[in-house]
Amino acid sequence: MRTVGEMGEFELIARLTRRLPQGPAIELGPGDDAAVVAAPDGRVVATTDLLVEGRHFRRDWSGPYDIGRKAAAQNLADVVAMGARPTALLIGLALPPATPAGWAERLYDGLADECERAGASVAGGDVVGAAEITLAVTALGDLGGAAPLTRSGARPGDAVAVRGRLGFSSAGLALLAGGRDAPEELTEAHRRPEPPYEAGAEARAAGATALMDVSDGLLQDLGHIARASGVRIDVTSAAVPVPGVLGPDGLRHALTGGEDHPFVGTFPPGAPVPAGWTVLGAVTEGDGVTVDGRPYGPGGWDHFRS
Amino acid sequence: MRTVGEMGEFELIARLTRRLPQGPAIELGPGDDAAVVAAPDGRVVATTDLLVEGRHFRRDWSGPYDIGRKAAAQNLADVVAMGARPTALLIGLALPPATPAGWAERLYDGLADECERAGASVAGGDVVGAAEITLAVTALGDLGGAAPLTRSGARPGDAVAVRGRLGFSSAGLALLAGGRDAPEELTEAHRRPEPPYEAGAEARAAGATALMDVSDGLLQDLGHIARASGVRIDVTSAAVPVPGVLGPDGLRHALTGGEDHPFVGTFPPGAPVPAGWTVLGAVTEGDGVTVDGRPYGPGGWDHFRS
Repeated sequence: MRTVGEMGEFELIARLTRRLPQGPAIELGPGDDAAVVAAPDGRVVATTDLLVEGRHFRRDWSGPYDIGRKAAAQNLADVVAMGARPTALLIGLALPPATPAGWAERLYDGLADECERAGASVAGGDVVGAAEITLAVTALGDLGGAAPLTRSGARPGDAVAVRGRLGFSSAGLALLAGGRDAPEELTEAHRRPEPPYEAGAEARAAGATALMDVSDGLLQDLGHIARASGVRIDVTSAAVPVPGVLGPDGLRHALTGGEDHPFVGTFPPGAPVPAGWTVLGAVTEGDGVTVDGRPYGPGGWDHFRS
Repeated sequence: MRTVGEMGEFELIARLTRRLPQGPAIELGPGDDAAVVAAPDGRVVATTDLLVEGRHFRRDWSGPYDIGRKAAAQNLADVVAMGARPTALLIGLALPPATPAGWAERLYDGLADECERAGASVAGGDVVGAAEITLAVTALGDLGGAAPLTRSGARPGDAVAVRGRLGFSSAGLALLAGGRDAPEELTEAHRRPEPPYEAGAEARAAGATALMDVSDGLLQDLGHIARASGVRIDVTSAAVPVPGVLGPDGLRHALTGGEDHPFVGTFPPGAPVPAGWTVLGAVTEGDGVTVDGRPYGPGGWDHFRS
């Protein structure tokens, strides 16, 4: 198996690019100074994330295909969290020269497959040498004529509802980190989140007032909505879905675990919460996040302090 | 001076975000799951680059402000090289926790100022911890109703012309690497390229058939146009601007040095080459790149092989 250093930049890029089907939104794909992506709405939704080996993924816990799926998923979810339809990803990839070329190819297979799940394409990117593997993922999307679903629209009286798994990735990670046998359902969830991308359109159609994806943990992320909207959000613990597979710490994982990328939205009184969503709290006057009326303090994930 | 680790992710992001003026194209700036950027053309031009410390910049040679200027410039230039007007940057920044927070703030000042030169804004991004400083820059732009200026439109009979400095960054780097005294004009050019962003609109208005920015070296980058267009490009060495400040190796720096980000375009017969552009060659039948009729071989910069 050749390394990327033996293969060289241009052959590697050619091999990676061949693995990327280009959907109809891609007017000009990889190979020029920049890509050209359809933005029929006249605006484009855009978000970027960095993933660094050892911090956001481990090669001994996850294969390149799953790392690609996960890297794509977390950015596609950010686009959907604005109520938009994902159209394209751009990928910046830093690789040590000793990385097997096949590792990079499988990473791209994962990126391409997750894009397909969301109706998007990998439209371009950059590959460079580095000491650490780093992935920079930019996702673009189209709002289809609607206003973006921001974090600032929640109003007292709204219901808070979630769509997708909570706590699975966190419970899987805890078992992997402890070196213990873990239900495959949990370790798979950690390796490969499956955001329900249809949630953006569902929330928009139902008249949601705010929407975001849960990347850092339900309570911490609800704190962003509470702060941006100038409201309090109270979560009812008994309403939080905690399947038995999450184990004895299930509620904690569901309330504070990140990386599953479910979507949490607020729905005004009278707006029917869409099918598949679980109501787990309410928006009230005040500030901050409470669980069964008790304040939730700071102490979520911090990239530098952890 | 506090480090970014002492400051923590949220305060750091707040301090960085305050340094980013938001232009009229930014409908929703930093702080939500994604930004929303105007794309009045109905398409968006998008490109991404990774810059890694020790490979693309050195903290002992360049201050954070210049690194920010340069990182923004190389991506804004890619958008302009499509004939588009830059609208927004997204910045992914990986930092060791021991990095002084002020270093990151000056980096953002540089990013913001270079954006202002090009009429764009930093609309969002991501900050994470890592062992190496890595910058992921995504640039977006608008085509204003015109077709993109790709690398594949050059035709035999076209003139080849350049707009902007050639060889300055390379000559400056050679002097910095040799530890020698260097004219400030050269070392400044290495630390801070100044792409003439107006070149995209000039080339489009003049009916250019192909356009790109010179990032890897004139001859190597002309090779991309030759290959994509199925033509030969012959450069006349006596026509290449080689100011005396480039020193005895000036022609070599001008032909093979990268990172100045001038723009090189092809102009059909009868289309007047715009003011400020220097004609330095011609497109003919054939393939590859020649200098005074002699073939230029491979051996440009390769990120993994170097």
